[in-house]
Amino acid sequence: MRTDIDRNTVLCMSLSGRPGDTGTRFHNFLYRELGLNAVYKAFSTRDLAAAIGGVRALGIRGCGISMPFKEAVIPLVDELTPSAAATRSVNTIVNDDGVLRAHNTDYRAVRLLLDLRLVPRDAPYALLGSGGMAKTVATALRDAGFRDGTIVARNEAAGRAVAATAGADWRASLGGLRPRLVVNVTPIGMAGGQEADALAFPRDVVEAASTVFDVVARPVETPLVRLARSLGKAVIDGGEVMTLQAVEQFVLYTGIRPGDDLIARAQAFARAG
Amino acid sequence: MRTDIDRNTVLCMSLSGRPGDTGTRFHNFLYRELGLNAVYKAFSTRDLAAAIGGVRALGIRGCGISMPFKEAVIPLVDELTPSAAATRSVNTIVNDDGVLRAHNTDYRAVRLLLDLRLVPRDAPYALLGSGGMAKTVATALRDAGFRDGTIVARNEAAGRAVAATAGADWRASLGGLRPRLVVNVTPIGMAGGQEADALAFPRDVVEAASTVFDVVARPVETPLVRLARSLGKAVIDGGEVMTLQAVEQFVLYTGIRPGDDLIARAQAFARAG
Repeated sequence: MRTDIDRNTVLCMSLSGRPGDTGTRFHNFLYRELGLNAVYKAFSTRDLAAAIGGVRALGIRGCGISMPFKEAVIPLVDELTPSAAATRSVNTIVNDDGVLRAHNTDYRAVRLLLDLRLVPRDAPYALLGSGGMAKTVATALRDAGFRDGTIVARNEAAGRAVAATAGADWRASLGGLRPRLVVNVTPIGMAGGQEADALAFPRDVVEAASTVFDVVARPVETPLVRLARSLGKAVIDGGEVMTLQAVEQFVLYTGIRPGDDLIARAQAFARAG
Repeated sequence: MRTDIDRNTVLCMSLSGRPGDTGTRFHNFLYRELGLNAVYKAFSTRDLAAAIGGVRALGIRGCGISMPFKEAVIPLVDELTPSAAATRSVNTIVNDDGVLRAHNTDYRAVRLLLDLRLVPRDAPYALLGSGGMAKTVATALRDAGFRDGTIVARNEAAGRAVAATAGADWRASLGGLRPRLVVNVTPIGMAGGQEADALAFPRDVVEAASTVFDVVARPVETPLVRLARSLGKAVIDGGEVMTLQAVEQFVLYTGIRPGDDLIARAQAFARAG
């Protein structure tokens, strides 16, 4: 265990319903490699307002926010930056001397990945899902300039809400649509889920697409991603989103942007936990 | 830096106006030596109520309380244990699943040291000082059965208050008193203070005493303690109080009582910081 903590050690943390170890390992690995006097620790809470009050009062530098707190935390912060305001969803709080500013680095990660992969803005897309992360991704697509979208969700009310946000259509199922960009924001393909072995989109839909984007990060190689890679499609996978959003958090907390090699090593360390 | 923190890592902390490193080093050293999955970190705050709310909401296991929060924290906890109730002063909070119980381990340390050194209960004593720690020590003397006490303090109101608590007399100065037990609870002899080189009690008073008790811990070897040892007096020094109170905190937080050798090593490590 560690004995080099002192009065100047900075604490960053996360709040979620079910804390995992990935973020903790990612941030602490980078602190060590960069020689930063900082510690990262994951928490849960039954009293979100008091927990956020504690972040402010204790001078905790940064706080990651996960399910189920991403929307409930909005009235507890002092300022929504554009990423949080656009999505009405917060996954990162930065504490500047008692002023809490909320960000959504998932949104920023999706925007960055769409830019980096040069996905054409006029590509019609279909987005499968209607939860909080679906709203975040749909908002990022909208703000990136994607205009021809369809939200596919069995839950009509939730699906129509995401569609309204994104300026997209809603459908209960894909039907005959064969869009150039397909995006999965459901748990299909997620390890441990009921549909871990299922394809989020049928094979012929994947064959017809140019770019496949799967938000599932555990595993990175979902059935959808494996099929897309085998067909030579452009792929954005959930591991990329998770890592990039964590890097954006790290930059917000520390002001330091790690190099690509260091990020790759931190990612490998985080996933090995 | 440390990368073995995970979702199960327990956080303990302290709150004070000016955080030091001694407690942090003491606790983290013991966590490491005992292989405990725990981290200790010192904080300050400008909002005590929110900070304590954060301790509760984040499930922080234990919180040391130092100046200037020892009395202000009382209405913020759920329960005063006997040591905190007796002194109306809190230096330790234990969080049992959201229930905050307050302790005063300074009081417990003083009681233990008086017992261990077999200081006779009928010994007249003089206690120099009238601050919060003076009240704690005077209360411990009272509860240990010392009946013949004098509180010596230039501040009459504060001195009389401590005297009333302890069932003792008050005097502005020692005058002709030559008690068998003399106790310093002022900053006289403390490193960095205005009276770092001064004796808390005159030489002839020390000569006439059997036991000398100095609460100053930095340095442990104050002018008073050095003189008392050179004269062969029984001595209780501030390092013993500080270490014992920290051990009592450690036991309350972890349920583990370290052995004497380990405590000595933790103490040496803490002081080297």
